[in-house]
Amino acid sequence: MNLIVLDPNLSLKPDQFALSARQQTHISKVIKANQGDVLRVGLLNGKIGEGVYEPPTDDQLGYIHSLSLTSPAPDALPIILAMALPRPKMLKRTLSNIAAMGVKELYLIHSAKVEKSYWQSPVLQTESIELSLLEGLEQAKDTVMPKWSLIPRFRPFVEDKLPDLLKDKVGLLAHPYLAKSCPINIQEPCVLALGPEGGWNEFEVGKWLEAGMESVHLGERILKVETVVPVLLSRLYPA
Amino acid sequence: MNLIVLDPNLSLKPDQFALSARQQTHISKVIKANQGDVLRVGLLNGKIGEGVYEPPTDDQLGYIHSLSLTSPAPDALPIILAMALPRPKMLKRTLSNIAAMGVKELYLIHSAKVEKSYWQSPVLQTESIELSLLEGLEQAKDTVMPKWSLIPRFRPFVEDKLPDLLKDKVGLLAHPYLAKSCPINIQEPCVLALGPEGGWNEFEVGKWLEAGMESVHLGERILKVETVVPVLLSRLYPA
Repeated sequence: MNLIVLDPNLSLKPDQFALSARQQTHISKVIKANQGDVLRVGLLNGKIGEGVYEPPTDDQLGYIHSLSLTSPAPDALPIILAMALPRPKMLKRTLSNIAAMGVKELYLIHSAKVEKSYWQSPVLQTESIELSLLEGLEQAKDTVMPKWSLIPRFRPFVEDKLPDLLKDKVGLLAHPYLAKSCPINIQEPCVLALGPEGGWNEFEVGKWLEAGMESVHLGERILKVETVVPVLLSRLYPA
Repeated sequence: MNLIVLDPNLSLKPDQFALSARQQTHISKVIKANQGDVLRVGLLNGKIGEGVYEPPTDDQLGYIHSLSLTSPAPDALPIILAMALPRPKMLKRTLSNIAAMGVKELYLIHSAKVEKSYWQSPVLQTESIELSLLEGLEQAKDTVMPKWSLIPRFRPFVEDKLPDLLKDKVGLLAHPYLAKSCPINIQEPCVLALGPEGGWNEFEVGKWLEAGMESVHLGERILKVETVVPVLLSRLYPA
């Protein structure tokens, strides 16, 4: 946790924000802060700066007060990430990476090779997804929560939603076959579609291409989704 | 496991290699292969191709025979990676990523901010390190085991060993401060030094720079080591 991102819903009074149990543990155990210490904090979806720490008491949570928030959040990546729902044990890490790297719009999509059971996983509950994203923000010293959606039906998304998303953007379909090499250091905003382990099936690839996406590959090495995400994002937008 | 990497030490006779328990489980449970099926295999530190599967019996391990190994392993990255020893819970994943991405020379180094206890972790046993590396190779369809060394003493490494490693190579020290932006898509081989969480201390930075390394940064976002490795490797050698 390189930045403590304060939650407006935990506002005690103006300029005073209670800490979550997770943040309190980090401040007590890792930072080992004392009453009155000035800590680096940000406001969720807001600016970054400093605040004064007040430890918890028997009848009150620890909190941050006397905020001075002056810096904007770091730049976002100009990318919309549409990825097949990863297996639950990879999802949390992948979500944290996505948030840490500055993606602000995410769609988790069904695909023929995504096991139906993944959609029942508790890690898909809103609280769990937003906690993983928040941990990524706190790691990367960002405050802006990515917008995310679960898309359990592939076809309506690529047929009805994708064309709007693609307006004024490059559309890149990460796919090992029939593809040119993925571009490097592009300037334009893009929509990036990442397949499941085993890839999109033929029908799905056809649908992506129909919608105007271009198929690109990453070379002969096959990487785990949790590795492919940082690899692709840093390749497309290294700056 | 996208490639079954056969271990020469498990050779039953020429052209016949026993499967490890881990590989056997994958073939039985995931691939669900039957006797006589042709599987994609490679020979550790050798070529890649196909072999015929023979399931285990009561008195014999499962094995692969009638190998036809025709393709070379994928290209290696022209990089020597010198990184501060990561915390044990991150080490396995980081090692697998490093191997999957094609690094072939790795030094895990002590730093002032590496907890001494990390050096006692069971994940530093040779078997454990090489298993994590092998899993990365099998993920990326590579066969060439990276050379790796544990460097519990920082100073002799940077003073005596590093100058030789740097011959005809660019030396890049990933460091958040006093640095220019990390280059993109370089053509030359390089030595890349990655610090611990919290970074190298001033003495260590001085030593790296003295040896001829150049300090580079990755922007304002601070990423976990398991994320920084794929980000940096794909930024330096995207092709």
